Amino acid sequence: MKLLRVGLPGAERPVVLGQDGTAYDLSGRTPDIDGAFLAGLDPAELARAVAGGALPVTDIAGQRVGAPLARPGKVVGIGLNYRDHAAEAGAQIPTEPVVFLKPANTVVGAYDEVLVPRGSEKTDYEAELAIVIGRTGRYLETHRDAAAVIAGYTVANDVTERAFQFERGGQWDKGKSAETFTPLGPWLVTADEVEDPQRLPVRTWVNGDLRQNGSTAEMIFPVLEIVRYLTHFMVLEPGDVIVTGTPAGVTLGHPGTPFLQPGDVVEIEIDGLGRQRQVLGKA
Amino acid sequence: MKLLRVGLPGAERPVVLGQDGTAYDLSGRTPDIDGAFLAGLDPAELARAVAGGALPVTDIAGQRVGAPLARPGKVVGIGLNYRDHAAEAGAQIPTEPVVFLKPANTVVGAYDEVLVPRGSEKTDYEAELAIVIGRTGRYLETHRDAAAVIAGYTVANDVTERAFQFERGGQWDKGKSAETFTPLGPWLVTADEVEDPQRLPVRTWVNGDLRQNGSTAEMIFPVLEIVRYLTHFMVLEPGDVIVTGTPAGVTLGHPGTPFLQPGDVVEIEIDGLGRQRQVLGKA
Repeated sequence: MKLLRVGLPGAERPVVLGQDGTAYDLSGRTPDIDGAFLAGLDPAELARAVAGGALPVTDIAGQRVGAPLARPGKVVGIGLNYRDHAAEAGAQIPTEPVVFLKPANTVVGAYDEVLVPRGSEKTDYEAELAIVIGRTGRYLETHRDAAAVIAGYTVANDVTERAFQFERGGQWDKGKSAETFTPLGPWLVTADEVEDPQRLPVRTWVNGDLRQNGSTAEMIFPVLEIVRYLTHFMVLEPGDVIVTGTPAGVTLGHPGTPFLQPGDVVEIEIDGLGRQRQVLGKA
Repeated sequence: MKLLRVGLPGAERPVVLGQDGTAYDLSGRTPDIDGAFLAGLDPAELARAVAGGALPVTDIAGQRVGAPLARPGKVVGIGLNYRDHAAEAGAQIPTEPVVFLKPANTVVGAYDEVLVPRGSEKTDYEAELAIVIGRTGRYLETHRDAAAVIAGYTVANDVTERAFQFERGGQWDKGKSAETFTPLGPWLVTADEVEDPQRLPVRTWVNGDLRQNGSTAEMIFPVLEIVRYLTHFMVLEPGDVIVTGTPAGVTLGHPGTPFLQPGDVVEIEIDGLGRQRQVLGKA
């Protein structure tokens, strides 16, 4: 199923898309698409409800699409998870996942404006597969255990200010935390509909120019290993989001290419998970 | 005012302490001590309500004390913010604040058990002054602006696994994120009752031995500068928590001293803000 939230910021309502793209209102089942909803979600049952006409059709044309889930408990980032990106960043290939965190209030919708922070000269995009957690994960042992806590997947732009990240003393989080820095969506695709999360093409365009053209097949640590690994360092909870790293092609790796400026348009697409589009603005 | 939450985990009720230590139930005013409550809080008005007998007395004897606020939107950490601690950690004195993040689900009460993670050999304590945010802060310019967004202060133990932090590839967050790793409390003391947050003695005992004996006077970046600075990298929101760094005396800085083990007792005290006590357990 494709789950999404439509409406003004803070007043989104939950919607599910049928196979033919018809939108059905989920408000009668849940006040929001959040951890509590995902923890109880049975995608097969929801699909039957949609097919059986148990949910009211709703018109979402022209409405804003919010992030596909309510504010997460946490947003975890995995760094340098593609060999070609680690190389362009001048970093060594990590021997275990590099972990950072983003504040949950960085999350916005897939088509929302992204704001270049005040004082920023190095705002950069990072197209990423995002994992959405649906069950509590703690000290998981196997990839099968890890698969059982994943609710689904969505597209993320892990927007990053490179000078804040690398040149301002200390941890990467400083460059990952500005408002609007985590566009998510447009949809949350439930895990049962993603046949193989390690075979998804990932592409980014800036002002129409193709800048990233990779595949999740090139991840150093695949999705199930990321989830298993993280649960040995933190408790993952329903509604948490993990952004799994970006392929080569970010501005950081291409000296001379300008960083993002107000007015620029970033588009990010992952096959089967949809396409984002953000216009850059100014904080 | 001293605000606290008593009751079983997830079922805490809000309480305010009068000047003589009498506890008054706040449930009639707010379902919880959270960002929404703090955003609307007028400590002088609440003090008048307590003095005027407008709130019911409640008996909290023998009840668990939870963290003094509901799960924060984010927990921000400041690293190496005391010269003596930077020296013992073998780090340079930072020229601007070092920023990291902790997942909000690490927060527990001041007397709750702290769990040594599986596979941990270097679990360490860090006594810290915690700032609790009461108003939204975004691109604040002055220390006066910063003061206006602070709801109050509490005690934090920024528990850290040093091998996870430094030896497992990547960002500090990996060693800051385990369950139970952020005991807060016992109380949230509103800012009007903290005459000078830069003159607070900070002490830690492990199994009765005094290990940290510092003062917030020794901070490199004081509270108001931390808050002002952070708002240029992220939006601070009501209910957010900032742990402001630890003085010298952590285990990391004393080779040969054993790290924390199940059964150890950690006590942390900040004058005017109360005293924590945690018994270590095993995850």
